[in-house]
Order: sequence, then C-alpha cells, then structure tokens
Amino acid sequence: MQNPLLAPELREFIKDGKTVELRSLFESGHPVVVAEFLSALSPEEAWKALQHADPVQRAEIFSNLEQDLQAEILATLDRNEAARLLSDMPPDDRADLFKSIPEDKQEEILPAMAQAEREDIRRLSAYEEGTAGAVMTSDYATLTPDLTAAQAIEQLRREAPNTETIYYAYVVDPKRRLLGFVSLKDLILARPNQKVKDIMHPEVISVRVDEDQETAARKIQKYDLLALPVINGGDALVGIITHDDAIDIITQEQTEDMEKLMAIGGAHEVSTYMKTSAWGHFRNRCGWIVILAMIGLISGAIVQRYEALILQFAILATFMPMLADTGGNTGSQSATLVVRALAMGEIRPADIFKVLRKEFGVAVLLALVLGVLTFGRVIFFGHGEALPPGYQLAQIGWAVGIALGIQVITSTIIGALLPMVTAKLGYDPAVVASPALTTVVDITGLLIYFSTAKVFLGI
Amino acid sequence: MQNPLLAPELREFIKDGKTVELRSLFESGHPVVVAEFLSALSPEEAWKALQHADPVQRAEIFSNLEQDLQAEILATLDRNEAARLLSDMPPDDRADLFKSIPEDKQEEILPAMAQAEREDIRRLSAYEEGTAGAVMTSDYATLTPDLTAAQAIEQLRREAPNTETIYYAYVVDPKRRLLGFVSLKDLILARPNQKVKDIMHPEVISVRVDEDQETAARKIQKYDLLALPVINGGDALVGIITHDDAIDIITQEQTEDMEKLMAIGGAHEVSTYMKTSAWGHFRNRCGWIVILAMIGLISGAIVQRYEALILQFAILATFMPMLADTGGNTGSQSATLVVRALAMGEIRPADIFKVLRKEFGVAVLLALVLGVLTFGRVIFFGHGEALPPGYQLAQIGWAVGIALGIQVITSTIIGALLPMVTAKLGYDPAVVASPALTTVVDITGLLIYFSTAKVFLGI
Repeated sequence: MQNPLLAPELREFIKDGKTVELRSLFESGHPVVVAEFLSALSPEEAWKALQHADPVQRAEIFSNLEQDLQAEILATLDRNEAARLLSDMPPDDRADLFKSIPEDKQEEILPAMAQAEREDIRRLSAYEEGTAGAVMTSDYATLTPDLTAAQAIEQLRREAPNTETIYYAYVVDPKRRLLGFVSLKDLILARPNQKVKDIMHPEVISVRVDEDQETAARKIQKYDLLALPVINGGDALVGIITHDDAIDIITQEQTEDMEKLMAIGGAHEVSTYMKTSAWGHFRNRCGWIVILAMIGLISGAIVQRYEALILQFAILATFMPMLADTGGNTGSQSATLVVRALAMGEIRPADIFKVLRKEFGVAVLLALVLGVLTFGRVIFFGHGEALPPGYQLAQIGWAVGIALGIQVITSTIIGALLPMVTAKLGYDPAVVASPALTTVVDITGLLIYFSTAKVFLGI
Repeated sequence: MQNPLLAPELREFIKDGKTVELRSLFESGHPVVVAEFLSALSPEEAWKALQHADPVQRAEIFSNLEQDLQAEILATLDRNEAARLLSDMPPDDRADLFKSIPEDKQEEILPAMAQAEREDIRRLSAYEEGTAGAVMTSDYATLTPDLTAAQAIEQLRREAPNTETIYYAYVVDPKRRLLGFVSLKDLILARPNQKVKDIMHPEVISVRVDEDQETAARKIQKYDLLALPVINGGDALVGIITHDDAIDIITQEQTEDMEKLMAIGGAHEVSTYMKTSAWGHFRNRCGWIVILAMIGLISGAIVQRYEALILQFAILATFMPMLADTGGNTGSQSATLVVRALAMGEIRPADIFKVLRKEFGVAVLLALVLGVLTFGRVIFFGHGEALPPGYQLAQIGWAVGIALGIQVITSTIIGALLPMVTAKLGYDPAVVASPALTTVVDITGLLIYFSTAKVFLGI
C-alpha cells in the first residue's frame, strides 16, 4: 500500500463530491493501488468515485479491479454507461468481463456499442478457455513493409494511446499475414529513411490461436519476449499475448499443477483461498478424498487377510506402516519431479525409457540404504521381540529389508511411469495425484510385504 | 527448433571455416535457438563456431548457453579472449558466470578487464543468492530531470546498444537517488521541448537490494512492469530487474515449493532433471525418506501395542490403513492450499485464525461425509465379520466413523497450522513437507483410532 488514504476518508470524499482530492489520488497512485483502495468500497461507492476520474484513467483503474467487483459495478450501470466503460477497457480484459456477466445483460449492452467493438468482443470471447486465443488482446501495432523508419515511428506515436504496447510492431501483408517484426528500439536505431522491410526480423516466434496458453507463456519466457504474436489457421495475425499475461498464465498453471498433485479439484484459480467458502473448498476436495478412502479399504482387507501371520510374528506389525508410508513418499517424489520436468518442457513423453532408467538407478540406491538400515534395525534392536520357536531374527531381517527394497523400487517406478504414460496419452500428467499414488502403493506394498515375509519364513 | 541444421553439418561448417554459412545461421536464428544448436557441440567446437560471429552476436548467443557450457568454454580461452568475451556480456549474466568459475581463473581474468567492468562484476557478485541484488543488472538508462523529451530520446538512442531496455528510463538526482521514471512511450507522446521532470511519474515502485528476489518478481507481476528499479539503503538506484528475469524467478520459486512439499532437497534448479545423475537425485531425496521411515516405526509400534485389540475385533484392521491414508490426504490438501496462498501473498501469517476457522469448516464437512459413509459401510456390509459375543456391529460403526471424523479434523488443522506457524517464525512455509505431515498424522491417527475404539467397545 503506497497511499495512506483509508476507506472512511475515501467515503467522505465521495459523499462530498471532492473531485480535486479524488483526482489527485487517481493521478498519483498506480492504477493497481487505486483499484485496491476502491475494492474496500461497495460497487455503488466505487463507481461514484470512478466518475470523478477522466475516462482513460477510469478504464485503467476499473480494469485492475477484481472481475467480480467489475461485474457488480457493471450491473448498477445503465446500458449506455456500461457500453462506454467497456469501450474504454483493454480488449482482453473487456472480453473476460463480458464472458462473466449474465446473458441478458450481454444482450442489453451489445447494441449500445460501436460495431467494431461488438465484433471484437464476439471474436475474443469465442476462443476456448485455456487457449492462446482466450488470453490474447487485439490492441497491437502493425506496420506495412514499405514504410520508412521515420514514418513507422510517427505511426506508432499516433497509435500509442490505443495500443497495449508500441515497443513491438508486427509487419503484415495486405492479408495480415505476418512478414516480420520490429522493435521500437530497432526503429530508433535505424536511419530515418531505412525501410521497415530492411530492418525487420523475418523469423518471428509466434503461437497458433488454438494452442495451449501455457505453450504461449513458455515461449515468451524462453525467448525473453515483450509480446508474442498469435496467428490463425490461415497464418494471419489475430492478436498478441503480452509479457504480463505470460507471468499470470505461468502462476495459474503452477497453482493448478500443485493442487492437482494433491488431488484438489475446482477451477484452480490464483488467490481465491480466502474468497472460496468452506463449502466451496469442501466440494473441491471431497471427491478424491472419498474415492481414495474407499480404495484404502483394500489395504485393510489385505492386513486382515494376513492377520494370522502378524499374530504369529508380532514384529512384522512394527514395520508395516513404515513400509506403506515409505512407498508413498518415494513414489510421490518421483511423480513430482517427473510432472515438473514435463511441465517445464525439459522431458517429453517419448523420453519414457530414459526417465525410467534414471528413476531405477535412484530407486536401487534408496532401496539399498533403506533395506540395509531396516535389516540392521531388526538384527540389532529386535532381540526383545517374541518369535515362534525355530525361527531366527535374521529371517525377519531379510524379509523386512528385502520387502522394503522391492516396495521402494516399485513405488518409485510407478510414480515416474504414471505421469509419463498419462502425458503420452495426451492428458495432463499432473492428474496423477500424490494421494492416489500413495493409496495405490499402499496396496502393492502390503502385498509385497506379506508375500516376501512368507517366502523368507518358509510358510 | 526453427532451423533444420544438425550438429554434423554444423561440425562440417566449423571444420571448413565456412564463415558465410555460419554467419547466416547466427543472423537468421534467434540467439536462444542458435545457443541450443551449439549445445550439441563440444566447448572447443562451440567456441570455434562463435568466433565467426560478430562480437555483439557472439556475446548474445554465448549468454544464452547453459552456464556449465559457458564455464567450460571460458576455461579453454586465454585471459584476453576471456576478458573480451565477458566485457560484451550483459552484466547480470556475466556476474553469474563469474561466480561459477574457479577462483584462480577469476584472479587470472580480472586484471585483463577494464576497471569499470571489474568493479561492476565485484559489485554484482557481492549480493547474497536469492536477493534482488543477485538478479539485477547494471545496464539501465538514467535521465536527469531537466532534459527535454527530445534530448532524452536522443540520449536513449545513443545508449540503446549497451542498455538492456530503453523502454523505461529512471530519473535520478546527482546522488543517483530515484526521482521518478518515464517510459519511452511517455517521451514519444510528449511535446519535444517538455521537460522530463514534468513528464515523469514521481511515485516509482521499487525494491531494496537485500529483499527477496521473489518479492521483486511479484511486484513486476502485480504492477505489470517491464522493469523494476533496485535501490540501496541510501535510496540510490543500483540496478534494475527486468520482466524476463521475473518469469524465471517465479518458475524457480515454484519448482522449489513443489519439491520442498515432497521433501526433496537440493538446489531446486529448474530444468535439471535429466542433467542430475541418479546419484545426485538419490542424495536430494534420501535424507527425508530415511528420517521419515525411522519415524514411521512409531506407527508400527502403536499397531503392535494394540495387536490384542485387533485380534479380538478383526474388523478394526480393515479400516486401519484407510484411516491413516485419509489423514495424510486431507492434511496434505490443507497444507498445499495454505502454502500456495502464503506464497501468492494472498494470506499472511497474521491471518492464522481466519485460516483455521475456514479449515475447521471444511474439515467438519469432510469428517461428516466420511464418518457417515464409513458407519454405513460397517453397518450394511459388516455382517460377515466375526465379532466377540455380546458386541454389536453398531458399536464398531460408531467407533470407526467417529475416529475417522476426529482424524480428518485433526489432520486438516495440523496441515493448515504447521505452514502458518512456520511462516510466522520467519521460515519458508513450504518446508512443511507433505510426506512429513503424512507420517505425523499416521501416528496421531492410529492413537485416535485405537483410543476411540476402546471407548466405544468399553474396553
């Protein structure tokens, strides 16, 4: 918070219609900060305050409000006010807001808008959520190849007030096909009469309108871009995605990956923890928890089936939960690393054998350490345990140590294999949730444990 | 991959010294792509290829190589070549590379560099890893307040070749204290004779040199900045952090959070899965796995202690692993959501009671659903189970259902409480790893289970 002004004072200003004070606040603060202040007010109050701002500032501050508040404010406006406010907003934010309001409100506002904007909204709202098309904006600068650098700078200067960025401009032919791009820096460094086509970079990194938004964001990250052009099936430029959208996309995808990894459902929105009600959280979490609890009963049935064995060799019970937990832990670790490496584009589904080879190596090392430690634990600290006559502590040691080793190796491999296979089938590898994995390797682990024990105890 | 040229052909070009072909590759491809191609070569070959590029391109491509390969190439150069190459690199990449090479090599190269660059390297390398100072660059544009817009644009044009960005310029007084900032867009839109001090934005979002790099990255995200100025204790401008660094920082912090959440140690670098050997992975994962396996033995001891009870009521064994797993799952879910909300700055450690109230609400709902389902499972499908004479199935149903409910509530609360307390104590909340939580609630869960059973069975 950069401004010490508080909600009560703000309300006072609004009630008394203190335009000068409100304007000075709007002008001195960053739109993001001003939007934060207004969030403390009711939709009616916030709108009253915003009416004191000039239209450009008003749209800028309004665009930085939470989308829920935007929709609430919009609901209080008549169609002409609403249409004017929407007209001034950046096209991508406008399309997002438009999609979020009720259909009858949409129908009411649309006719009050200019045709170009109406079509822009329709076009931008048409793309499926999660695609490059759904996050792009239509405010970008284009140039024709035969302009001179001086003419191009002059054109960008004229367009600057209505363009999201003038630092990158895209060079297009009459069919809007992308020929190249120039940065404002290139133009400023060029001789004034040099042609744009001689300055431009002809190899442009771009993304298709129906590609995943994360693909677009990762390209912006990889190539350190300010903006990434979006092209349609006919190779025509239809929009751009800017660097600030890329950060937001990456943050959202990360939240989604983390929540999926913990088997949490819902929309995976960023910064909605406090806003979501307990009931909403419950609904997002309940599904998997119940399913896994039901599957978990299989583990119970296995324990029950081997009850006689546990009764005969009480020491086996000591190591049973540890064996199940360790399987879950090692499996979750390999799954997490593989899911992350896939998300970062470091490995591809085709690398499955390379990944399995590496995980097998890690698993064998972990199995050795844990197996030896557990064997030692049994041999050196197991003397107090009651054993049926004729059985040696070493038999128990071998059984537990080797079972744990096998459990660690299978769990690690399952943890790596599941996301790789999921990715290969074209699904999001993060759906292989750690809780699900834990439940599965619990079952395999108990089966491994009791079978191994029976072999080593000769039952 | 944008260019079909393959390593064998590249080797051919290098061997035959085909400057024209190599230059055309360097000029047509994005430096990131060219760097990818060179990564397939040996350090000697890569350097031979780079010698055909002009110095600016060479430094740009070299800066995009993996740091390990940069260091290997540097090791093959004599001190003057090395000094020249370092001089042409962006200051932040240069400082990072410099920190990664052996000290004797550092001592050898430094005297061959110009004094200004020597000091720049020393200054940038001095900041602790993970701070804003360690990621900032010293190539930024500054203006004085009395310049006109036209003079300012002219100055930026002159500085452009050596500046990371000319789109933001910082206005400083003679002591380099930050007075404001202007964007190139502001300057282009201003009247040519307007003074910089009248155009500039006096309220500048900035970060202190010793603040966390993530704080800096989140500010760039929140305020949609192209660059964030970094100031020292005396409020003097010492560097900037650019938008592309912000994306990389956020990606790295996210990898760190996810790996910590799965109790994986190590440096938490991005895109190092394949590069890290099985031994390296083993070392990162082994520590917690072994510690948790040892703690897991406590659960085993509890099971063993209640063996007589399990023997008497065989049906109790059926629900035991499910109860432990469900505790781990619900606790991991609440921990993940709280860790993420803390990382996003959505909640603060002071919100602990708000968070606990919300999680308690979620937990009660989950407990009700799971408790009722489990009670039903016992009552309707438990008829085949052997019970000691005089005991009712309903008693078991109540015991299991209520124990599961208590387990879900305690686990969810523990999962939310631990990261909040960790954050309050000033540590990274992500250290409360899900495997550790699972192990802890295993122990509490078994104690709850057997105590509740004893109460309901009147033992």
